[in-house]
Amino acid sequence: MTNNTIVPDLLIKNARQLICPAESSSDEASFKIIADGAVACVKGEIAAFGTTEEILANVNIYQQTTVIDSGDLIVSPGFVDAHTHPVFFGTREHEFEKRNQGKSYAEIAKEGGGIRHSVRQLREASEEQLIEHALPYLDQFAECGTTTIEAKSGYGLSLKDEIKSLRVIKKLNELHPLDLVPTFLGAHEIPDEYRTQREKYIQMIIEEMIPAVVEENLAEFCDIFCEEHVFNVRETEKILTAAHDAGLKLKVHADQLSSSGGAELAAQLHAVSADHVDYISDRAIELMKKNGTVPVLLPGAVFFLGLTHYAPARKMIDADLPVAIATDFNPGSCMTQSMPMMMTIASIYMKMTAQELWTATTATAAKAIDKKNLGKIEIGAKADLALWDIPNFRYLPYHFGVSHLKKLIKSGKIIWEK
Amino acid sequence: MTNNTIVPDLLIKNARQLICPAESSSDEASFKIIADGAVACVKGEIAAFGTTEEILANVNIYQQTTVIDSGDLIVSPGFVDAHTHPVFFGTREHEFEKRNQGKSYAEIAKEGGGIRHSVRQLREASEEQLIEHALPYLDQFAECGTTTIEAKSGYGLSLKDEIKSLRVIKKLNELHPLDLVPTFLGAHEIPDEYRTQREKYIQMIIEEMIPAVVEENLAEFCDIFCEEHVFNVRETEKILTAAHDAGLKLKVHADQLSSSGGAELAAQLHAVSADHVDYISDRAIELMKKNGTVPVLLPGAVFFLGLTHYAPARKMIDADLPVAIATDFNPGSCMTQSMPMMMTIASIYMKMTAQELWTATTATAAKAIDKKNLGKIEIGAKADLALWDIPNFRYLPYHFGVSHLKKLIKSGKIIWEK
Repeated sequence: MTNNTIVPDLLIKNARQLICPAESSSDEASFKIIADGAVACVKGEIAAFGTTEEILANVNIYQQTTVIDSGDLIVSPGFVDAHTHPVFFGTREHEFEKRNQGKSYAEIAKEGGGIRHSVRQLREASEEQLIEHALPYLDQFAECGTTTIEAKSGYGLSLKDEIKSLRVIKKLNELHPLDLVPTFLGAHEIPDEYRTQREKYIQMIIEEMIPAVVEENLAEFCDIFCEEHVFNVRETEKILTAAHDAGLKLKVHADQLSSSGGAELAAQLHAVSADHVDYISDRAIELMKKNGTVPVLLPGAVFFLGLTHYAPARKMIDADLPVAIATDFNPGSCMTQSMPMMMTIASIYMKMTAQELWTATTATAAKAIDKKNLGKIEIGAKADLALWDIPNFRYLPYHFGVSHLKKLIKSGKIIWEK
Repeated sequence: MTNNTIVPDLLIKNARQLICPAESSSDEASFKIIADGAVACVKGEIAAFGTTEEILANVNIYQQTTVIDSGDLIVSPGFVDAHTHPVFFGTREHEFEKRNQGKSYAEIAKEGGGIRHSVRQLREASEEQLIEHALPYLDQFAECGTTTIEAKSGYGLSLKDEIKSLRVIKKLNELHPLDLVPTFLGAHEIPDEYRTQREKYIQMIIEEMIPAVVEENLAEFCDIFCEEHVFNVRETEKILTAAHDAGLKLKVHADQLSSSGGAELAAQLHAVSADHVDYISDRAIELMKKNGTVPVLLPGAVFFLGLTHYAPARKMIDADLPVAIATDFNPGSCMTQSMPMMMTIASIYMKMTAQELWTATTATAAKAIDKKNLGKIEIGAKADLALWDIPNFRYLPYHFGVSHLKKLIKSGKIIWEK
């Protein structure tokens, strides 16, 4: 698996196992476990991987090479979290308690809670305050083994505040070792001031926000919350078509609470992903498979909201539609950055195997943000690697609630260790 | 809250809040939050607590005093985990995956899985091997903010192997800063070799195991798995009566899978706790309240086993029967040491408030292992304290899957920090 002699910046050797996922979770052969593994990295990319014996025969270690003798650790790609909302200002733990005590979402919203609460908070915060608020959250992503996150705006809901949120994401990407892939989510909700004139808000998204986002090159994707009570399928199509025409790639929050046609539309528009899809239809599964739209499942949101209907992961996987798993990190419906915890929940409630879960959180997750070179251990992939103190790959979903991460490597550099 | 001048070994000052739970979770007034708090500890005990101003006016800091300026951190009692099975040899992640894939417990048992698998593994391990296996698990308890655990035998199921397990617990208690409170659980299951002669196994527990355990002073409690298919109510009464007569305090695994009369019996026998109680009856609630038997709820086991019927915590609390929450840490039905994760699960599925959860994991948990001086911030309580990087006490159940612990103090000494 190596060609010629390599002079690595970073060499990881003697790993108990390398976990090497490929994009298709249903293909047994594509998921490889290499015992007594090694990975050689050059300039932030994987230059060679294989058994320690193979790799040591093909590398020249020089004085500047960082050598990690990983002993009993297991090496995997860093997690790719394909769905997060990390830019907000203030948390909603009171609401979490109230909801668990039986208060309905509608009642909480009436009291000023929900997304609207986060919108008010975000609008009052400066760019600097938002950056300071978000940085510790990014550290927590890293502590959970995540090396790249997709990051959405969506608590601004005005031209100024959506742009502010996306600038914060851009700045965070510069300041923090994690990579943030920016998504514009101006269509997260209709803001209070447009409640009675939703057409006007949609018009503003299309005519003002999208052009401004594109002009400043602040987002790679445009996302929308497609649900009957938020943006319906017709409105979703209108906004996403404009986003596509402006050069943005597409994502859709689809079929979270009902089968509303959102996932079908996502596929028809060749969206890169359709997210949540708890109530996906059989037709949507077929269409997404045909058009390459990746389902991004968010089991943490179902768990955190105390719901019982999880996305039918088995049905999708068994229909040869590989799924990604993400955290949905946000202050209202899933306050966690932990991909290992998502693995546990998805094991229990979505009946996914450990192999499927590793793939769903790495290689398929990378596909869900259109990044072919992430979430894999293969030559040319980004050297984003996590070193785990676990006996085998099945162990991570099983032993939950504690941290098994020992080292995290981003672009060939150690960014976290304990 | 202080008398005279105190010369502390350890002083924690400027805590954003002190969380001071009391035993009764239903009593609003008994749960105190002290803003800008301080705690002074002398010889491993809390000698004074109050506002920083109050405490600084009443202590003399000397050269050997360790002073922690806790800044923005919140200080709580360390967690008391009142139900754990930490002595085993080998994990069961394969079984976890199989069960999630739809294999029944009976099928897994037929293939040699389940408790019987752990029994075979434990019998083959030496005391030294078991100690080495358990020590990292104890570290993980500490990383989750736990300072005391109840620790059960129960994977030996023979005189020799139960004694071995309890000696391991004794040795772990000596070796590790955490306190382990030992429980003899020889009646965890009928071992294979006694399948057809269960009366003989029960006789052996009563006539050989209990006397040997007491003789060597290896356990404080005797526990039993009371369930129709394991030990029925009549057998449970017989064994627990013998244990009581021999001087052991009592605990019962009761009503986990059905309302079998186990919790009623626990109360009638004045057991210190009845654990699981997912299917507790109204009559048992009344009896336990009357006789001071504490319900120890194990939401992690319900979650991990993919079940949906959680113990009716609200009913118990609303009937003025305070509950404890524990992890049930064990390789088969709940592989975690995380009390914060139990808080999250109990918030969502048992509808407990944050205040009730803090009490259930500290003061009431201490009552469930008959230790009045644990799980509290009060004068004379053991100086077992956890320092959390959270904005308020409601935050811990809410932001799940990541670690918020910054320092852990056991008997007045820092045993973990990050």
